Amino acid sequence: MPDFDDAFRAGLVELLTWRRDVRRFRREPLPEGLVERLLEGAALAPSVGLSQPWRFVLVEDAGRRAAVRANFERANAAALAAYAGDEAAHYARLKLAGLAEAPVHLAAFADRSTAQGRGLGRQTMPETIEYSAVIAIHTLWLVARAHDVGMGWVSILDPMEIARTLDVPADWSLVAYLCLGYPAETDDTPALERQGWERRRAQENFLLRR
Amino acid sequence: MPDFDDAFRAGLVELLTWRRDVRRFRREPLPEGLVERLLEGAALAPSVGLSQPWRFVLVEDAGRRAAVRANFERANAAALAAYAGDEAAHYARLKLAGLAEAPVHLAAFADRSTAQGRGLGRQTMPETIEYSAVIAIHTLWLVARAHDVGMGWVSILDPMEIARTLDVPADWSLVAYLCLGYPAETDDTPALERQGWERRRAQENFLLRR
Repeated sequence: MPDFDDAFRAGLVELLTWRRDVRRFRREPLPEGLVERLLEGAALAPSVGLSQPWRFVLVEDAGRRAAVRANFERANAAALAAYAGDEAAHYARLKLAGLAEAPVHLAAFADRSTAQGRGLGRQTMPETIEYSAVIAIHTLWLVARAHDVGMGWVSILDPMEIARTLDVPADWSLVAYLCLGYPAETDDTPALERQGWERRRAQENFLLRR
Repeated sequence: MPDFDDAFRAGLVELLTWRRDVRRFRREPLPEGLVERLLEGAALAPSVGLSQPWRFVLVEDAGRRAAVRANFERANAAALAAYAGDEAAHYARLKLAGLAEAPVHLAAFADRSTAQGRGLGRQTMPETIEYSAVIAIHTLWLVARAHDVGMGWVSILDPMEIARTLDVPADWSLVAYLCLGYPAETDDTPALERQGWERRRAQENFLLRR
C-alpha cells in the first residue's frame, strides 16, 4: 500500500498548477513510443462500470490532419463572428490551437455502444460514458505534463465532421481533439488569463451548503 | 518552474493505481476544513474558456441526505430489474454506493448559463461545460486520495430529482453525486474486478491509427 507524503502532495499541487492547455508547441517529435506509454497511464482512469469506453485515434495522415485544421479554421471564424467590436478584436488575437505545429494529433472518442461493464451505473445517466472518456483524457494530460509533454484540448470544431474525417465507427462520439508535443513555453497561469480574456475566481464562490 | 523527476512520476502512477471508486467508508468524520482544502485543489482543474463551471454542494441536512439515499435505492432497484437470472443475482450482491456511511456528501453540478469565459471554446461543443466539471471532480478525486481520503461517484440515481432535492438554480445540471470519507479498505484493483463483474482490458485495444 502506497504512503503518500507531504513531498508527493506538494508535487501533485505543482503538477496541477503548471499543467497548461498548450497552444504553442515546439515542432520536434516526441521520442518513439512515448505517446503509447503515456496512454498506458491514461488507461488507469476510472470508468463507469469498468466500461473503459475511451477510444483514441492517433492521426498521422497529412491529408486528415489538414482536414482537421480546416475544420478548426471554419469553426473559429464562425465563433469570431459571434463577437463584436473590441471583444471580436481581442478574440481574433488569441491563439486557440497548436494544430499546425504539434507533432502529435490524438482524437478521443467515447463509445456508448460498448457492452463492457454490462451497462452498470449508466442507466439513468448514460452521459457517464463520455465522462469516463473525459477522465482518461485528463489523466493523460497529467501524466504527459509529468514527462514535460504539453497537451492542448481543441473544442472549436465540428465534432461530427471530425468523426467522418477519421472514418471511425458510427457509435463513437468525439469528446476531444488533442495536440501533444513539447511546449514552447511553461507557465503557472492560463494563457487566457495572461491575455486578459478571463480570470479565475476563488473556489469559495462555487460552493454551496444544503 | 517545477522539475518532475522519476520519483514523482512513480508516485503519480501509484496514485492513479491506488485511487478507487470507494463504496465502503469508515464513519469517522473528516478533519474540520479538509473538504474545503481538497476543493481548493480541485479548483486548479482546467475549464473551457476559463469558465470554471463546476458548482459543488455540500449536503449536510439529514432529510436531504435521506431523500438522496431513497433516490438511489429506487434507481438501483430499477437497474436490477434490467438484469435476469445469474446476472441479476450477481448485480444484487454488489455494493454500489456508500451513502449511508460516508461522512461527506458532495453533489457536483455544471452551469451552462455562466457568462464566465465569454462563451469561448463552447460554441460547437457546449458539452465542454459538463466536461470541465468532470475534470474538477477527477482532480478532487486525486487530491483526496493523496490525503488518504476516499471518494465514490454515485451515478445510479435520477439527476433531475437530485437537483430538486438540493434546491439548486434551474440552470445547473447534476454531473455526479459524490461520497467522501476514510475508506474501509485500500486496494489496487477495482471492486467490480475483484467481484467478477468486469475486468479491465489492455489499452492497446482502444487505440487506432488513421
